Amino acid sequence: MLKEAIHHRPKDNYSYAYDKDTLHIQLRAKKGDLNEVTLIHGDPFEYYEDKPVLHHSEMRIIRHDEFFDYWFIAIEPIRYRTHYLFSLKDHHNEQVYFAEKGFLQEIPYDIPTAYFKFPFLNAVDVFQAPEWVKNTVWYQIFPERFNNGDEKLNPPGTLAWGSTEPEYDNFFGGDFEGVIQKLDYLKELGINGIYFTPIFKATTNHKYDTMDYFEIDPQFGDKETFKRLVKECHNRDIKVMLDAVFNHSGYYFEPFQDVVEHGQNSKYVEWFYINEFPLKTEPIPNYDTFAYEPKMPKLNTEHLELKRYLLDVARYWVEEFDIDGWRLDVANEVDHQFWREFRQEVKQVKEDVYILGEIWHDSMPWLRGDQFDAVMNYPFTEASLDFFARGNMNLGQFKNQINHVMASYPQNVNEVAFNLLGSHDTPRLLTRCNDDVQSAKQLMLFQLTFVGTPCVYYGDEIGMTGGQDPGCRKCMEWDESKQDLDLFHFVQNLIQLRKDEKSLHPASKFRFLTLEAQPRIVSYERSTEDESIIVVINPDDDEKVVELPYSHSDILISEGCQINEKRLTLGGKGFTIIKETF
Amino acid sequence: MLKEAIHHRPKDNYSYAYDKDTLHIQLRAKKGDLNEVTLIHGDPFEYYEDKPVLHHSEMRIIRHDEFFDYWFIAIEPIRYRTHYLFSLKDHHNEQVYFAEKGFLQEIPYDIPTAYFKFPFLNAVDVFQAPEWVKNTVWYQIFPERFNNGDEKLNPPGTLAWGSTEPEYDNFFGGDFEGVIQKLDYLKELGINGIYFTPIFKATTNHKYDTMDYFEIDPQFGDKETFKRLVKECHNRDIKVMLDAVFNHSGYYFEPFQDVVEHGQNSKYVEWFYINEFPLKTEPIPNYDTFAYEPKMPKLNTEHLELKRYLLDVARYWVEEFDIDGWRLDVANEVDHQFWREFRQEVKQVKEDVYILGEIWHDSMPWLRGDQFDAVMNYPFTEASLDFFARGNMNLGQFKNQINHVMASYPQNVNEVAFNLLGSHDTPRLLTRCNDDVQSAKQLMLFQLTFVGTPCVYYGDEIGMTGGQDPGCRKCMEWDESKQDLDLFHFVQNLIQLRKDEKSLHPASKFRFLTLEAQPRIVSYERSTEDESIIVVINPDDDEKVVELPYSHSDILISEGCQINEKRLTLGGKGFTIIKETF
Repeated sequence: MLKEAIHHRPKDNYSYAYDKDTLHIQLRAKKGDLNEVTLIHGDPFEYYEDKPVLHHSEMRIIRHDEFFDYWFIAIEPIRYRTHYLFSLKDHHNEQVYFAEKGFLQEIPYDIPTAYFKFPFLNAVDVFQAPEWVKNTVWYQIFPERFNNGDEKLNPPGTLAWGSTEPEYDNFFGGDFEGVIQKLDYLKELGINGIYFTPIFKATTNHKYDTMDYFEIDPQFGDKETFKRLVKECHNRDIKVMLDAVFNHSGYYFEPFQDVVEHGQNSKYVEWFYINEFPLKTEPIPNYDTFAYEPKMPKLNTEHLELKRYLLDVARYWVEEFDIDGWRLDVANEVDHQFWREFRQEVKQVKEDVYILGEIWHDSMPWLRGDQFDAVMNYPFTEASLDFFARGNMNLGQFKNQINHVMASYPQNVNEVAFNLLGSHDTPRLLTRCNDDVQSAKQLMLFQLTFVGTPCVYYGDEIGMTGGQDPGCRKCMEWDESKQDLDLFHFVQNLIQLRKDEKSLHPASKFRFLTLEAQPRIVSYERSTEDESIIVVINPDDDEKVVELPYSHSDILISEGCQINEKRLTLGGKGFTIIKETF
Repeated sequence: MLKEAIHHRPKDNYSYAYDKDTLHIQLRAKKGDLNEVTLIHGDPFEYYEDKPVLHHSEMRIIRHDEFFDYWFIAIEPIRYRTHYLFSLKDHHNEQVYFAEKGFLQEIPYDIPTAYFKFPFLNAVDVFQAPEWVKNTVWYQIFPERFNNGDEKLNPPGTLAWGSTEPEYDNFFGGDFEGVIQKLDYLKELGINGIYFTPIFKATTNHKYDTMDYFEIDPQFGDKETFKRLVKECHNRDIKVMLDAVFNHSGYYFEPFQDVVEHGQNSKYVEWFYINEFPLKTEPIPNYDTFAYEPKMPKLNTEHLELKRYLLDVARYWVEEFDIDGWRLDVANEVDHQFWREFRQEVKQVKEDVYILGEIWHDSMPWLRGDQFDAVMNYPFTEASLDFFARGNMNLGQFKNQINHVMASYPQNVNEVAFNLLGSHDTPRLLTRCNDDVQSAKQLMLFQLTFVGTPCVYYGDEIGMTGGQDPGCRKCMEWDESKQDLDLFHFVQNLIQLRKDEKSLHPASKFRFLTLEAQPRIVSYERSTEDESIIVVINPDDDEKVVELPYSHSDILISEGCQINEKRLTLGGKGFTIIKETF
């Protein structure tokens, strides 16, 4: 038994409350090393005839990655208290107990401190994202580039829609009126949540350099128009999420301008991190910024007055405009304490507001229930692109990576992960696929049938292209003759399927399958107790034949495939989704 | 290289802010497997000629336990942002990089998501216990049994002081006046913090069944006397910590009595967890309690009104009586959210209040800076007793266990760990040592020269005995002829030494030594940059000879030892503390 590989530490992804009655427990062991893991558990205070009462429950492997198997069990502690240890048996029949005190030969009945402990399942500590998020398919809009609906608002120098490539500093006049005009298009696509990149007053086309957090940028419209936009969305059961840029302000944010002007004497001097006076921006700014960008001075979110100001901003747009979510820009560079108070503040106004952090890395410390509901799941993005688009990951590595991400978080966190394939910060999906639409389709198929809540970047559904920003921020293509309508209908079908099929609900099970004789085929199952959906994807260009586990299944989606009883023939880049009801 | 053993996940004990400028980074690897670990780190946004700027810093092993080496480094990120990966080299010269993305053959220069990340060192998130705690030696008083100073307060049936064994329900009349009378005794001993078990109005002798959180139990005195007690302590530079029993109330707590009386119609019904009406206490209570104890109904700390009530309690005793700390009873069964608000509340009143949780297990989730300053370090207690008193752990296991506990927490957490050798909840130290005073001395020697803040349980310093409670709650022995005065002076000397020697300050380094030719000898070094203190302890009954690393050291304390140049002869159970200035 490889003891060095065995890992468990209570809380986080190893033992956590899945809901107010259910505890999930995970143990990590070397891949293939153990063949039996039993959870021995009880209430630390329950005795029968002077002996502690302990229950034995078999655990099972629910996933594995490159090095490890992850053993899992869900239990319901009767009085909310649980202490526990594991009985481990390996393939050579070596048996040992594993507890907080280490590896033991016997159950430490009389040494309560030796056990692992999940002291009490307190409902308030349960990680809980809004229920509606699980049924949401997001659509990300970069407002300057979605649709120009009111030319009167065009900023000076606005270019004709789509007349040229997007640059760092050009404008095409996208606005709220334009979005409102296209809500029926979005409804037709099937999405039911819009994430808007920033809309507050700023100088750039991306608006990440906020001048005024309480004002709409005039090029997008006014507050009345925004209110109407939210209402029109809500009328169509579409949620609205805004971008909170609280890590830094813009250079022209009034308080920062006050510091520029009055230096040390500014009453806002502590709202920022100023390293010396007078301020200068070259060669690098002598005040802290986002990424050495002089236009984005970092905000000191520890400062009580500024904190109050930002919390008021967060509150205001929820309270006055009824928005449904906040996406938090550069969330990991802002202090945890600020986000804890942020959560309290906005959930007080609207209990089911969604809080999404922009974090590109492993994010457990923000997903413990006290801060965010989700993060932008870039590890999912990277693994998916590496496999389906870039081809620099083999199938085993891909499965390992996806399983690794899932094993890194509690299940309730995975269920609302914000799974994206690209954004305004990355090259576009189709461009990353070297313009191979079939690969892009496979990626969207995977995204839209996976656990978590997917987000489509505007235009990806009609095959728009573009490299790293600003390339990925082209004007939305509204000329149908230039849209890939086949792709549109494909995405539309997938979104509908996701809504119709309970096996595709984020809380349904996910597991990779290995179909006989074809290790290069991606296959996975989503399932509930009474039905199963199997997805099979051929990422290669040559034909493949696989054996399905069921023979009389419904075919929900199929492209380039033939099914004959259990025999599935997949053409190059073919894929299918089949369903079996038990 | 055993890759399954290699572990690092940012935050918690693996990468954390030691102070507002310093980041500590720890990597775990199989014991003895690696011979070189380099941290490769930089600001994710710093580039030079289009290449990311990365620094290379050698890490070193600072401790190991049964299975693992812990590699460590402290760095000071210039602009507070850090991303990093590790270069690992094993004894066969296999070299590999280890990052969030896994094991890599090359540095992933252009893939920022591949790195580990400590996004920003925000000062407000730094774990920070009050500075004074590091210089504190605690003394725990069980007020009913310390000293009877005012016989007028004796509850009915009070027994003559020490006239009989302590029982679950007998009373000896200890009170505040009695404590005040003995403060000079405590000052003489040298302690500078008192932890009082509960003092609020209750029915039992231990007072863990609170009736009224805003009243002093009349057997101890009134508020005036308590105020005087705190003042007298402060006059002697002694801090005062009270016991907050917020997990449960007593059966006779007025709101619970209201529920007993009015059932479902009580306005306090949601302050508790009532499973059915009418309430009954047999065979087990049909309301949630502490450990099935009907007299201790569990409080629903999620209920807003009750929460406000308890936070007011917490605030009141700090604000009105100037207490310096709260010890939180059964802290791990109360929700995290409550403790976060508790911290905000009390630190607002008095910034340097100490918050100590009663948790007997691994406690990282409470020690992230947002909840407690420390927990009662029972894993330290158990390992120390197992080795020095019970003899059921060999030296290697003992060192592994102590190192394991230290590796489980950030260094700033270890520096204020509440290290105890016994309490009102365990048999007394001397009794656990089978009345072997020499073993008890060795334990106190270890405790008082170790990292963290030690606590002496009343009477242990004069050799009192007693088994599991109520046995360990005997009346304090004030008859000097029955006190072990040699032990008293020994403890007194150690406390003084701890105050005098900067190497014994909790922030000074700790490492176990292995002295040549004598693996059974406990030896460790505490050190600063310019001096070193070495402790050598012979836990056995036979004489041992060891070679010291220094020849001309000061002998600070020595018992049963002879030193001749570098040669140290330790008699059975002998020990010494020597000091070397560089």
